[in-house]
Amino acid sequence: MSKERIWHGGDLDKARRLFPEAPEPWIDLSTGINPIPYPLPDLPPHLFERLPSPRAQMDLEVVAAEAYGAVDAATVMAAPGTQVLINLLPVLWPRSQVAVLAPTYAEHAHAWRMARHQVTEAASLEQAENADIVVLVNPNNPDGRVLKRCMLLGLSERLRQRGGWLVIDEAFADFESDESLVPHLPENAVILRSFGKTYGLAGLRLGFAIAASETVMRLRRILGPWAVSGPAIAVGKQALLDRDWRDAAQQARDADARRLDALLGPVSDQVPRGTTLYRLIESRHASDLFAHLGRRGIWVRRFEYNPRILRLGLPGSEAAWTRLGEAIAAFRNAKESE
Amino acid sequence: MSKERIWHGGDLDKARRLFPEAPEPWIDLSTGINPIPYPLPDLPPHLFERLPSPRAQMDLEVVAAEAYGAVDAATVMAAPGTQVLINLLPVLWPRSQVAVLAPTYAEHAHAWRMARHQVTEAASLEQAENADIVVLVNPNNPDGRVLKRCMLLGLSERLRQRGGWLVIDEAFADFESDESLVPHLPENAVILRSFGKTYGLAGLRLGFAIAASETVMRLRRILGPWAVSGPAIAVGKQALLDRDWRDAAQQARDADARRLDALLGPVSDQVPRGTTLYRLIESRHASDLFAHLGRRGIWVRRFEYNPRILRLGLPGSEAAWTRLGEAIAAFRNAKESE
Repeated sequence: MSKERIWHGGDLDKARRLFPEAPEPWIDLSTGINPIPYPLPDLPPHLFERLPSPRAQMDLEVVAAEAYGAVDAATVMAAPGTQVLINLLPVLWPRSQVAVLAPTYAEHAHAWRMARHQVTEAASLEQAENADIVVLVNPNNPDGRVLKRCMLLGLSERLRQRGGWLVIDEAFADFESDESLVPHLPENAVILRSFGKTYGLAGLRLGFAIAASETVMRLRRILGPWAVSGPAIAVGKQALLDRDWRDAAQQARDADARRLDALLGPVSDQVPRGTTLYRLIESRHASDLFAHLGRRGIWVRRFEYNPRILRLGLPGSEAAWTRLGEAIAAFRNAKESE
Repeated sequence: MSKERIWHGGDLDKARRLFPEAPEPWIDLSTGINPIPYPLPDLPPHLFERLPSPRAQMDLEVVAAEAYGAVDAATVMAAPGTQVLINLLPVLWPRSQVAVLAPTYAEHAHAWRMARHQVTEAASLEQAENADIVVLVNPNNPDGRVLKRCMLLGLSERLRQRGGWLVIDEAFADFESDESLVPHLPENAVILRSFGKTYGLAGLRLGFAIAASETVMRLRRILGPWAVSGPAIAVGKQALLDRDWRDAAQQARDADARRLDALLGPVSDQVPRGTTLYRLIESRHASDLFAHLGRRGIWVRRFEYNPRILRLGLPGSEAAWTRLGEAIAAFRNAKESE
């Protein structure tokens, strides 16, 4: 399992290598990151200069607990992005049978395999259920499938009865219908929440693990002190307190998602699905569409395991909407005249 | 081993709890961080908003390789501070006999114990030598002891012959006489370099591991992509290219260290030692001095394993020098009139 085998969104250098003739600037629709970021506050130099104080990180975790609906702030731990948590979680357990509900974000199975667990990719919860540890993404990436809370609580309880664990990556839960397990946290669950996607600040590196306090303590010991930067603590705290911005952002991005579906519907064999921050289409022409958009400087996400699907994030400006709309219209014209 | 048992510098909240009557602002001399930081460049919003590109991190690693004298940029990996590397390194090896050359920065032994290795704290290289993995800090924290390169190369070769490894934390090597192993990297060594201390930007979270490229690949897989923030990549690259700043900073901090020694000499039973960025004193009155300075709003570093030593970082302003000088003069007067 070489790291390089996992494809990711967000790498415009790769887009430029694949489509060297494409016009600049590129429009990057390959991620599920909110294209309209939370406005950066002034960041005083001391945030960069001093070691972040434990108290400052604790304050952030209290605010995050409130924002995510956690019952107890001691169940919330900040980290420099959820990716590092995905990579560290497998270290918490001895070699186990791990089932990842697939297809999903590929880094999960990869991380558990790296840590020498026995990993199966399960096509259904029933198939996954016999493992020691069940890992799933909810809403799922890339298809947006949402498992209901009552299902997950039942699963976690059955796992608990035989010492099993449930890991839920809720990276895209902020803007979705509320099936989050955070307010109903089972003692044998670890939940991940992403800050950078919702707030459009992926470069800041901030995410959270939410789990029973003893599990959080173990994660803290593995990650060590000062993992989160001073700027991430300050911006995260201010943004997570700002409910008005979050609500307005959700409304605006929901409208964007509907607008994107209207563009994508005609080039998809299925009704587009996904989450507020990305839409998935399925088409026998997906590879052609990927190349057609690439040549026009629009970078979308394809998937190694299924060449018939593409995932598109939301355009962030009217200029980007126009370029995407024109590119898709040209694609439809070309297909119709074939 | 509870995390809370390790004392750290830099936590002024703790200082305020211990000395609630002390005047503000506190002078924090409890760390070894350069008090005159590298001037922060303008940070364009896209550094915070976009996922850092793999290419941007690679560019930083090329610059770091040059700055630290690494022969090959493929041996250099950036991380969000060296602390997370200290915590992750023990995951690279199966359960081993680990010797930490002690006393030293306490997080090393702690991290290896957490990962269930068998850890001994060795008082000398000879005692450490029989372990599978030898961990040492060079120059050492807190006493500044520098082991010579030829000694370390001999040790790494003897370890290599029986499959052993050498981990060297060179967090304070930048401003010291050059015994770094980076330009002579043995294949069985992992070296850590800290960015935040030298450049006075500890809140940014940036550090490096330097090791044979296969080892670096393994570390990359554990840490995962995007561990380093966009701002850390941009600032790190600019600062590490700026040799003039580095040279001027070294000269200025060397002068500061001599000035600090002149103040501390009279209250130390030994000639002060340490590195350019911190000085260690030893005195039967160390606990009194700690409290005396604390009541005056000056926070210095004490050590759980030896109440007779104190470590002081460099004051960052003339006002801080004056307050420290007056506080030490008052302490000497009080002791003389006892």
